[in-house]
Amino acid sequence: MTRIDGRENGELRNIKITRNYIKHPEGSVLVEFGDTKVICTASIEDKVPPFLKGLGEGWITCEYGMIPCSTITRKPRDASKGKVDGRTMEIQRLIGRALRSVVDLTKIGERTIWIDCDVIQADGGTRTASITGAFVALVDAINKLNEQEKFQIYPIKNYIAAISVGILNEEVIIDLCYEEDSNAQVDMNVVMTDAGEFVEIQGTGEENPFTKTQMAKMMELAEEGINKLISIQKEVLGDDCLLIGTGGNLTNE
Amino acid sequence: MTRIDGRENGELRNIKITRNYIKHPEGSVLVEFGDTKVICTASIEDKVPPFLKGLGEGWITCEYGMIPCSTITRKPRDASKGKVDGRTMEIQRLIGRALRSVVDLTKIGERTIWIDCDVIQADGGTRTASITGAFVALVDAINKLNEQEKFQIYPIKNYIAAISVGILNEEVIIDLCYEEDSNAQVDMNVVMTDAGEFVEIQGTGEENPFTKTQMAKMMELAEEGINKLISIQKEVLGDDCLLIGTGGNLTNE
Amino acid sequence: MTRIDGRENGELRNIKITRNYIKHPEGSVLVEFGDTKVICTASIEDKVPPFLKGLGEGWITCEYGMIPCSTITRKPRDASKGKVDGRTMEIQRLIGRALRSVVDLTKIGERTIWIDCDVIQADGGTRTASITGAFVALVDAINKLNEQEKFQIYPIKNYIAAISVGILNEEVIIDLCYEEDSNAQVDMNVVMTDAGEFVEIQGTGEENPFTKTQMAKMMELAEEGINKLISIQKEVLGDDCLLIGTGGNLTNE
Amino acid sequence: MTRIDGRENGELRNIKITRNYIKHPEGSVLVEFGDTKVICTASIEDKVPPFLKGLGEGWITCEYGMIPCSTITRKPRDASKGKVDGRTMEIQRLIGRALRSVVDLTKIGERTIWIDCDVIQADGGTRTASITGAFVALVDAINKLNEQEKFQIYPIKNYIAAISVGILNEEVIIDLCYEEDSNAQVDMNVVMTDAGEFVEIQGTGEENPFTKTQMAKMMELAEEGINKLISIQKEVLGDDCLLIGTGGNLTNE
Amino acid sequence: MTRIDGRENGELRNIKITRNYIKHPEGSVLVEFGDTKVICTASIEDKVPPFLKGLGEGWITCEYGMIPCSTITRKPRDASKGKVDGRTMEIQRLIGRALRSVVDLTKIGERTIWIDCDVIQADGGTRTASITGAFVALVDAINKLNEQEKFQIYPIKNYIAAISVGILNEEVIIDLCYEEDSNAQVDMNVVMTDAGEFVEIQGTGEENPFTKTQMAKMMELAEEGINKLISIQKEVLGDDCLLIGTGGNLTNE
Amino acid sequence: MTRIDGRENGELRNIKITRNYIKHPEGSVLVEFGDTKVICTASIEDKVPPFLKGLGEGWITCEYGMIPCSTITRKPRDASKGKVDGRTMEIQRLIGRALRSVVDLTKIGERTIWIDCDVIQADGGTRTASITGAFVALVDAINKLNEQEKFQIYPIKNYIAAISVGILNEEVIIDLCYEEDSNAQVDMNVVMTDAGEFVEIQGTGEENPFTKTQMAKMMELAEEGINKLISIQKEVLGDDCLLIGTGGNLTNE
Repeated sequence: MTRIDGRENGELRNIKITRNYIKHPEGSVLVEFGDTKVICTASIEDKVPPFLKGLGEGWITCEYGMIPCSTITRKPRDASKGKVDGRTMEIQRLIGRALRSVVDLTKIGERTIWIDCDVIQADGGTRTASITGAFVALVDAINKLNEQEKFQIYPIKNYIAAISVGILNEEVIIDLCYEEDSNAQVDMNVVMTDAGEFVEIQGTGEENPFTKTQMAKMMELAEEGINKLISIQKEVLGDDCLLIGTGGNLTNE
Repeated sequence: MTRIDGRENGELRNIKITRNYIKHPEGSVLVEFGDTKVICTASIEDKVPPFLKGLGEGWITCEYGMIPCSTITRKPRDASKGKVDGRTMEIQRLIGRALRSVVDLTKIGERTIWIDCDVIQADGGTRTASITGAFVALVDAINKLNEQEKFQIYPIKNYIAAISVGILNEEVIIDLCYEEDSNAQVDMNVVMTDAGEFVEIQGTGEENPFTKTQMAKMMELAEEGINKLISIQKEVLGDDCLLIGTGGNLTNE
Repeated sequence: MTRIDGRENGELRNIKITRNYIKHPEGSVLVEFGDTKVICTASIEDKVPPFLKGLGEGWITCEYGMIPCSTITRKPRDASKGKVDGRTMEIQRLIGRALRSVVDLTKIGERTIWIDCDVIQADGGTRTASITGAFVALVDAINKLNEQEKFQIYPIKNYIAAISVGILNEEVIIDLCYEEDSNAQVDMNVVMTDAGEFVEIQGTGEENPFTKTQMAKMMELAEEGINKLISIQKEVLGDDCLLIGTGGNLTNE
Repeated sequence: MTRIDGRENGELRNIKITRNYIKHPEGSVLVEFGDTKVICTASIEDKVPPFLKGLGEGWITCEYGMIPCSTITRKPRDASKGKVDGRTMEIQRLIGRALRSVVDLTKIGERTIWIDCDVIQADGGTRTASITGAFVALVDAINKLNEQEKFQIYPIKNYIAAISVGILNEEVIIDLCYEEDSNAQVDMNVVMTDAGEFVEIQGTGEENPFTKTQMAKMMELAEEGINKLISIQKEVLGDDCLLIGTGGNLTNE
Repeated sequence: MTRIDGRENGELRNIKITRNYIKHPEGSVLVEFGDTKVICTASIEDKVPPFLKGLGEGWITCEYGMIPCSTITRKPRDASKGKVDGRTMEIQRLIGRALRSVVDLTKIGERTIWIDCDVIQADGGTRTASITGAFVALVDAINKLNEQEKFQIYPIKNYIAAISVGILNEEVIIDLCYEEDSNAQVDMNVVMTDAGEFVEIQGTGEENPFTKTQMAKMMELAEEGINKLISIQKEVLGDDCLLIGTGGNLTNE
Repeated sequence: MTRIDGRENGELRNIKITRNYIKHPEGSVLVEFGDTKVICTASIEDKVPPFLKGLGEGWITCEYGMIPCSTITRKPRDASKGKVDGRTMEIQRLIGRALRSVVDLTKIGERTIWIDCDVIQADGGTRTASITGAFVALVDAINKLNEQEKFQIYPIKNYIAAISVGILNEEVIIDLCYEEDSNAQVDMNVVMTDAGEFVEIQGTGEENPFTKTQMAKMMELAEEGINKLISIQKEVLGDDCLLIGTGGNLTNE
């Protein structure tokens, strides 16, 4: 099978991460998975939600949005409808969980890091692009904090990235574009760390259930794809990622 | 390890499904997974959502709620807050997808089947109990339609049930109660059919990522548990489940 | 006239109150007035609304809901509509007023007792069943507080119960089921204490105004019915109601 | 006892009804019960709510509001809070029921008559003033329709008015002003027709339950007060009320 | 050209300001610009919005509403729709800005003055009538504060009033009534002080853009009109406006 | 005076308009006024709002949003607050009016053109940048329609652009950046066509009223600025703007 855009089954789209995309937030990137483009920002607020007050820990939370014309048919604004829809809520909860899983929240002080993922052009995979890009914005924001006050322990423990896999015409493929996604029998999002461990697996076979063999194949492709994404994150961050996972006690340096 | 309630790692809680629990809806059951108790109903409305109008197909949709005192600490009503929270949306979307996956919606006419899952006592696993119970309510509702107008093709293709698995103290366990769930490193919900195929896998390791080996063990336990749940569904339904999956052309009988 | 379900004009439906119906709240009952079934719970929160802060008094408030399939035609969830409807508000305000009227709120400390009445099956009279059942749940909750900290003065001053009366085909009847209620010319709800005093009278003759003679007859029937309900409450509570109305100074016992 | 404003226990405040108070709606009055001032309007819309479509009948519905500075302490706007509070809902439902009870809705065609009661100064009894004043606005609106298209049967069957009664310092009094109302043990609103029949009785003894004797005394006072209000309505309407209750077949005139 | 109501192009409608219109708020007026009638109140709350807390300054804010039957076709309540519409927001923000511009907020203490403008009859120019009337209510409220605690510096610096101008059939006219307003090519609202300075100019030529010459003519007419309005304000206030703009140090008097 | 960023009083920031910025909508540009960056899109829907149904005319409407990190301090999403704030409403109404004023809506058929202006980086002047950029997106969208169905009369009558002017330290300046805007005594937005006519003037001197002389100076600067903006629009559009204002009857070409 040739895929609609000529890719191999296991081939990612063209991936691009641009740092410092907008000027106000502590971290901001434009992430592109082919035609999918998302602005991911990380901004720091010096307070925590009520359930954490006084515990000395921090929090990471995410909000996700799409500008109305990012989609093929204009999508009415959540604000005009007066509420956030279910899909948006699922995505923002997913991104928040993913990023929290690689940060030691007890090390960042009583702060909230707000992750905002705003899709400006959508062509499938906005949630996986968001996680992959938001991680880079998060590193930039944490590093800015680190410059100011030298964490005793550097709070980021691992890299994290996400990719979609799925089954289309009985074949297992990776990083589905919109056209593929809307015809796929099975759609699965996988979030993994650089340690090769799973943080999140969400697979749905509403149209067609899937077998254990297909499951295994999807997991294999996902792992390869995530490894590639993490090497792109490393390249983009350059020296700014040296502390990740070292737990480096900075006061001794 | 002994589990908090004395179960083996692979042992389900006491499962009970009571049919015809309330009188108005076409199908209604009380499903109990240990101390978790959910009223699941299926009621039929003779119209479909706008996006299906005129296509001759039907729809299945789900709403999920908890009475305020079902939880340890009273949970304020969604209605009082004026909106449905993110967790509720995720759960009702999950239940809807699961049930739609085993019904041929083109065979039920221009109707919506409303599935309501109302938790009256919560002790972990409300979404898996809901799917398992709601399937039985759905069968009862479809059978009532079938009595009235004899479907040409019986629309239910497969049984479906769901169970949670997770990792606690490094051990893989099934059907987590609330106490276990709130301490688990990994929490995964699996939805499967009687054909042994996956409809949905949702696993999260926010606290601790998980390895491929752990993943395999969780899937194994889940499959065993779901097989047990489906045999309970069959027993409870008795002769009323004979048409499931036969595609039986009723007009010839 | 024979009533639709064979009852005499002054005869209540089968009344049943089951205590300890769900495990988390301090008090919980299932109350049944014939086919009307309501879960009534009383749960204690250690704070009061802003208008009472610092006064040393407590508060009792009520919320009322119906699960969607409790009614003949499925009732959309308030939460999905994003607001509480007028009827619901009227009912929960009525239940709250009724229960507050028999409790000395200055004696329960700075606490809120939340009363939740969740209808799981509706067949007329849900508000009167709610008041009657919620009183029992309230006694259980207050007694749990009493065990912990021995009130100086036991705060419950009287029993309270409620019943509906109405006029159907020119005859005055009690405890109307849904079918009767929807055809009645006059519908009246009466809330009384065991001292034979009125706490609330709400009568509406939208279809047909009513005369003073009819009014008198309705009040007479209501009083008889409420006396029966209170004796059922006493029986169900057994020894747990011995302190009601005694004002007993517990510290001397 | 002398009342706070020098009235006798059974004495109404100064009652004034000004017709044609504002120019756009079909009927509009300013009603004053002492310092309580309400603008009541009746306006006609040529369609009915969905549940009446195609039945050839009409509908009367009411909305009630208070301008923020009508009360002693400024009351925030419902609109700013984004929802209508419970008290407002109760009042507007009460007014709607009261007016519908004296109109033959099958005679007004497929129309909605919107009753708006906007309180510009509040001093107790706004709901009873609203009903009493809105009736006059309603007559004006119906008469305008009648001029245009000569009803076969004049649709207004009876006069209707409302008054509050209550118990303060153990004495039964009528038409409570705000000061009295906020100290009363019992507060009761009575709606009656000129035939001396009850349309609505709503009495609450949250602070103090009340006895049958007190109940009888309150009803007696209410009846006297309502008779006075109806004679004021008649006087204000003059010749414009001649058709009320005659069922007059206009086509023969 | 003769205008629809016989006025000259530069002639205001009949202007009337009635002070002390309702009894609870510190200042209240009924302002009439012809058939446009607005109740304007000023009420004082002893706290400020969060952004001013602890700064020792005060705040003036405005809310604007229309009773449903104030307009030709009944306007549904904002509260029923659950939100404030865009036009209402624009108007209340405009009125707030206008009044704040003539008051030294650092002199009124940590207080909020709530301005409410409730339109009871609308015939064009409700926002300009509101500003003009609300200023008088504001003076009354400030004077009440002044009586209690003698401001060191009297906080009102200038008179302020507002008027509409526009272009209809190529002629520049002032104080447009509804009929004129809905046919005008250009609609402009001007807010000025008694020093002849502009506080706000808002002109829109959606139907027809306008030239610099027309702009100049509109400004000229507006200035004349505002001078007339301010002289009416002075007359109505009498001795109660003697301190405006004097900055008078009251403690020396 | 030297301005904060070294500009002359009458000098615009660096203006840049990038066409075809995102791929789905019919027209899309990125407009930059210095550091202010707005994505403006124009997308076509084949239906009109209810008030235009069946009239054969079209409509242009605008929605405006800011991504949360576009501002110095993260701005919470309207969607999370469940409502659109007053400033947003004012801006989107302004943009809509401006664009409608230069299009003959009777010539575009029963269609709605949705203008979305999404600010991705804010540094003052987002509403004037939005109008200026959205005009270009609108031309692209209209031209796409024109290619498909050759309008008889080309519907765009004029160019339109907008700029801010204001008074800072007693000097009149143009195109204020955020820092200037937040300190300005007077802030005025002017919308003009290429015919030198005003479509909208909105000036506010909340901090300091302004004189007629200052007003004249501001108008002069605004006119110069808008002429420059329109020449940039022309350059960016190239041959694609040849039909604007010609009223060209395309069927003869």
